[in-house]
Amino acid sequence: MAMGIGSPGVGARIDRLRKVMESFRLEGLLITGPENRRYFSGFTATDPMLTESSGALLILPGKSYLLTDSRYAVIAGIEAPGFEIVNTVGGLGHCLKGIVGDGKALAFEPNYMTVAQCRRLSEDDGLNLIASPFDPSVLRISKDSDEINHIVKALGITEKALGWLFERLEPGWTEAEAAWYLDSTFRELGAQGPAFETIVASGPQAALPHAEPGEKKIMEGELVVIDCGARYKGYASDITRTFIKGEPAKWQRDIYRTVREAQLKAIGAIAPGVACKDVDAVARAHIAQAGHFERFGHSLGHGVGLAVHEFPSLNPVNGQKLVEGAVVTVEPGIYLPGQGGVRLEQLVLVTADGARVLNGDTHFYDF
Amino acid sequence: MAMGIGSPGVGARIDRLRKVMESFRLEGLLITGPENRRYFSGFTATDPMLTESSGALLILPGKSYLLTDSRYAVIAGIEAPGFEIVNTVGGLGHCLKGIVGDGKALAFEPNYMTVAQCRRLSEDDGLNLIASPFDPSVLRISKDSDEINHIVKALGITEKALGWLFERLEPGWTEAEAAWYLDSTFRELGAQGPAFETIVASGPQAALPHAEPGEKKIMEGELVVIDCGARYKGYASDITRTFIKGEPAKWQRDIYRTVREAQLKAIGAIAPGVACKDVDAVARAHIAQAGHFERFGHSLGHGVGLAVHEFPSLNPVNGQKLVEGAVVTVEPGIYLPGQGGVRLEQLVLVTADGARVLNGDTHFYDF
Repeated sequence: MAMGIGSPGVGARIDRLRKVMESFRLEGLLITGPENRRYFSGFTATDPMLTESSGALLILPGKSYLLTDSRYAVIAGIEAPGFEIVNTVGGLGHCLKGIVGDGKALAFEPNYMTVAQCRRLSEDDGLNLIASPFDPSVLRISKDSDEINHIVKALGITEKALGWLFERLEPGWTEAEAAWYLDSTFRELGAQGPAFETIVASGPQAALPHAEPGEKKIMEGELVVIDCGARYKGYASDITRTFIKGEPAKWQRDIYRTVREAQLKAIGAIAPGVACKDVDAVARAHIAQAGHFERFGHSLGHGVGLAVHEFPSLNPVNGQKLVEGAVVTVEPGIYLPGQGGVRLEQLVLVTADGARVLNGDTHFYDF
Repeated sequence: MAMGIGSPGVGARIDRLRKVMESFRLEGLLITGPENRRYFSGFTATDPMLTESSGALLILPGKSYLLTDSRYAVIAGIEAPGFEIVNTVGGLGHCLKGIVGDGKALAFEPNYMTVAQCRRLSEDDGLNLIASPFDPSVLRISKDSDEINHIVKALGITEKALGWLFERLEPGWTEAEAAWYLDSTFRELGAQGPAFETIVASGPQAALPHAEPGEKKIMEGELVVIDCGARYKGYASDITRTFIKGEPAKWQRDIYRTVREAQLKAIGAIAPGVACKDVDAVARAHIAQAGHFERFGHSLGHGVGLAVHEFPSLNPVNGQKLVEGAVVTVEPGIYLPGQGGVRLEQLVLVTADGARVLNGDTHFYDF
């Protein structure tokens, strides 16, 4: 994939971030979360492991720094032209201390710093670290048009691959073969690859919301839940369809119809200012009415962007209100242990006056 | 990929862990690192995101628990038969409190717990958390025969794919095409996929040790550094070769030969009881002698197992001594800015009386 040279939106994002920092009287903010790092700088490197970072941002009121090591310094300079690139050859803490100086409080992201790292920076390097009073990720909730275009492109690739799979898939394919068909097609269609581990769960496996695709063969008459999403220019997509080869049984039609109705009702409830939990409640009430309340054990949806799971969460307790520009999944499901399950997931943009489904495909059954 | 039913070594691993816990008088240990979780339980689920866990282990002197959510509970029960499976529907901290009770100190892995999570467990759930005085990952350094077999299998797949690429690769292929050829071939040969993001860096890009493969075309006469590794049954492999299509220039032959000589010397120095930094020093001295000390900017190597980077690190300062059964990379390099680079990486098992190279291929040049 070609690498972008800077990102036109980055300057405005940093301005917004500085305004929030100012409102909390923060003198400095250390960004270690990989998606926030990319969002606020344009630096595209990912973290190779949970315990290995490709860099951190230091945002001060008047200047921005990108601290990284020699492996990434050259590309960082190209991708994040508004940042002073600091090579952390002497250690991250030592470099931070050199810039921030003594005493000044430095806010950090408690969700993206390990206890070990926090201890090293505080005790060994003598930094005055404070947990940030706000999560910079909230600034990523409302997407700009470039971001929406990337998500739509990622979703389009996913739908094309799913459509081709649907045409080809025959009883006898293993779940793993179906998953690999999708993953490889994503890449051949220009995506970076899957944004998360593709789920293909057939028959009784389909009653496990996050089953790993295995050597189990897909059989005629089984519900097959496929949950996948390509990643494009850093942006994730996320879609779930439930397929069946052969003639569906009445119970299969029934739960499918209930899930689809719940989904359509929930999408109809989406608009700026509506609480996330109220959208969840619409779908959950419909499923409860059909007698399956206990069989819908997960949240209705979640935000999608640079991360496949991000704010806001559409769950039964989140009182946060939806805002224009948010992109969320709407994915109700019914899972009957030992029998099978149905989950259907659409990707929805919150618009000024309601919601726009970003999916272009029509891979739904009419039962 | 088929899922293993338990792992014969898990019981012995927990026994060793309990002995170390006892020596530190630990009453309980919480394991949150994904590789340690798998190693000590056999539970194969990975973590979907940096901030999302598929489960944690609680090791008490007399009993072991695997805490996970409804998405994984069924498979956890199959894969980790020696563990009591606890569904964390009420929250991880709440469940831990219910098992551990009041006051008892619970050790945790500071490298695998975020500040936010530590705060929730301590302040909200009232657990008495203490940073573990030892890192459970050190118990993974010495591999058993099953582990070595998995690594050798992963390495064999990688070498087969690399060999095929080497036969096919022509000037004009992009770096991204070469990387995708490897990644897809890994999977077709039975691996889970790449263990880390495949690096294909040609020409001046090859002077950046961790360049991302892009749309740049591979040209005749350019050094092409390829660093990749398939993953098999959870185990990583890691290999680097430097290729050139066409006739190499003298400077290219010279740095290639120096790197290969440094590698062979370092491998010759490997044996149980030798300090990691002394192995690094052997390679570094050879490269320095050729006048390229400044052009070898990274560590000589690292452990490989469930994680692609794990203990021990072969770097200039690590005084830790090598032990029998450790699997480490030996990967010296010389990088000339603006021109190109050479890195060569072998995977080496520390044996009772020295070292055994696990690689089977002969993709080295003789210059």
